Amino acid sequence: MKNSPKKLGIEDYVEGILQNDRTVLSRAITLIESSRPEHHEQAEEIIEQCLPHTGQSIRVGITGVPGVGKSTFIETLGNHIIEEDRKLAVLAIDPSSTKSKGSILGDKTRMGTLANNPKAYIRPSPTGGSLGGVARKTRETIYLCEAAGYDTIFIETVGVGQSETAVHSMVDFFLLLMLAGAGDELQGIKRGIVEMADAIAVNKIDSSDSAQVKQAVREYKNALHLYPKPESGWGPEVTTCSATTGKGIDVIWELIGDYVSNTKESGFFWEKRSRQAKNWIYETIQNRLMDEFYNDPNVKKKLKSVEKRVLKGEVSSFKAAKMLLEIFR
Amino acid sequence: MKNSPKKLGIEDYVEGILQNDRTVLSRAITLIESSRPEHHEQAEEIIEQCLPHTGQSIRVGITGVPGVGKSTFIETLGNHIIEEDRKLAVLAIDPSSTKSKGSILGDKTRMGTLANNPKAYIRPSPTGGSLGGVARKTRETIYLCEAAGYDTIFIETVGVGQSETAVHSMVDFFLLLMLAGAGDELQGIKRGIVEMADAIAVNKIDSSDSAQVKQAVREYKNALHLYPKPESGWGPEVTTCSATTGKGIDVIWELIGDYVSNTKESGFFWEKRSRQAKNWIYETIQNRLMDEFYNDPNVKKKLKSVEKRVLKGEVSSFKAAKMLLEIFR
Repeated sequence: MKNSPKKLGIEDYVEGILQNDRTVLSRAITLIESSRPEHHEQAEEIIEQCLPHTGQSIRVGITGVPGVGKSTFIETLGNHIIEEDRKLAVLAIDPSSTKSKGSILGDKTRMGTLANNPKAYIRPSPTGGSLGGVARKTRETIYLCEAAGYDTIFIETVGVGQSETAVHSMVDFFLLLMLAGAGDELQGIKRGIVEMADAIAVNKIDSSDSAQVKQAVREYKNALHLYPKPESGWGPEVTTCSATTGKGIDVIWELIGDYVSNTKESGFFWEKRSRQAKNWIYETIQNRLMDEFYNDPNVKKKLKSVEKRVLKGEVSSFKAAKMLLEIFR
Repeated sequence: MKNSPKKLGIEDYVEGILQNDRTVLSRAITLIESSRPEHHEQAEEIIEQCLPHTGQSIRVGITGVPGVGKSTFIETLGNHIIEEDRKLAVLAIDPSSTKSKGSILGDKTRMGTLANNPKAYIRPSPTGGSLGGVARKTRETIYLCEAAGYDTIFIETVGVGQSETAVHSMVDFFLLLMLAGAGDELQGIKRGIVEMADAIAVNKIDSSDSAQVKQAVREYKNALHLYPKPESGWGPEVTTCSATTGKGIDVIWELIGDYVSNTKESGFFWEKRSRQAKNWIYETIQNRLMDEFYNDPNVKKKLKSVEKRVLKGEVSSFKAAKMLLEIFR
């Protein structure tokens, strides 16, 4: 018989988290990620009790296409800020991991030195569920990590899908990693992601042609310059680095610090946080209502056939919606 | 006593629309725009009966910031295509008109020659309601206009808000009007709108410096070129025109025709229409569910105080959502 871990009550969880007991933290996050309703109720209570201890971290979103060197970048930047005595939690949003069971961050050895550092906590992307579900779990996990004393949260995405908007809605600073010399410089990056970036960092400059790096920086600056100044009133900046050699990594951390102090001074930092918190309420409501709708057995039974009738032009989309809503009620 | 118009039954409406009786068409659209439930039921029935006569038009979205010359452009392009024996309906999406009671297209004299042309039908933006509501009304109005025989639908937006995404979701072709020599060329245009454009037309070239026009065209081409090829496989194109002198207007109409024939051949045209129809089902469902939620008297009573508790950090956004959902049920 396997030794099953001791059952924890809500108090045990909260106490463990506040004492930065990583095992307890991990188990609490597992509750958040569980699809069992009783787990979710428990998780909810834990979050509420942790709430007074949250909000003090810097939340940074990091994205870029596969191959841009995100893991190495996070490892290098992570070790850099830990040297500055910060405590780092690395989370990920990747709805595609639903299928691959953790294509991103699935393997902690990917960030070996960080994973073994007691000041870093790495949590793979939650598997299972829609983007909305994954995003909710990540948001709730941010709270627990903050309560556990992590003052810096990195949230990684794969940079090819919709998840960037979700990340953007939960971070203070959004960093886009790019490469030089990839031809059409923005190829491969989804429309709209560039415009969300507070900074673009051209990575792998150690192994890139320096003329191409300059060219890439120029192009990104032009691209960003085409758009109106962001609401934050800060940046966006374009910079370069090599996650492998560490060159430029300190500058990026300074940029982020500069952003945070500037926007805290102007009040934008807190305004954005408030806006995010409000949006989370309404998004959560919308997700739950829509989840209920799509999981309704009667709706499920009729959905495809109603859709077909719309595509054949037999009923309008509006009538179809009405029919499905009537089935739902 | 005022003469009130004869009460029409559903059959009268449908027959009138199919015979292109503009008075009946206008009254049917008024039903769509009405907030009274019995009107909406009637409107729904009219739409269903018109459905077999819809879908044959070219739907074009036209946007640009105030001052870019949208009305004159629509008037000139409209008259041009009417000369080619097309029949044009001009609709507008402008949620801001909720307040100003029709800031856009409110005054038909704005497009005098079109308004007086029997082959054109101009309908001001529906007033009242959220963007979702305005968008639904516009979509339903498209159907009625098509059933009335209009083979070209222009949908205008003000180009400064969220409404462009809504328009994009209901048109075949999305045209962005711009000016030359406005300095930072994309200033004033919301992020993301440029990337949705199938074509950008630099307007007012009659009164612009020709070097600046060339410069603007170059910058827009660069901006578009930075992004991946659109799914349609066509364009996007950058062109120039003067709505006042008519120069370049024919080229723009040729571009649109070229787009339509290309995408019809590749099948993308119909694929996009199907995708839009499906999305309308789910958007309509979401809008109705959320409307019900926000209009629930108990939710209304508690909404602000729950929001405040979240902003004070007393409860999490998730708990707040749950509380509000419990109130709703």
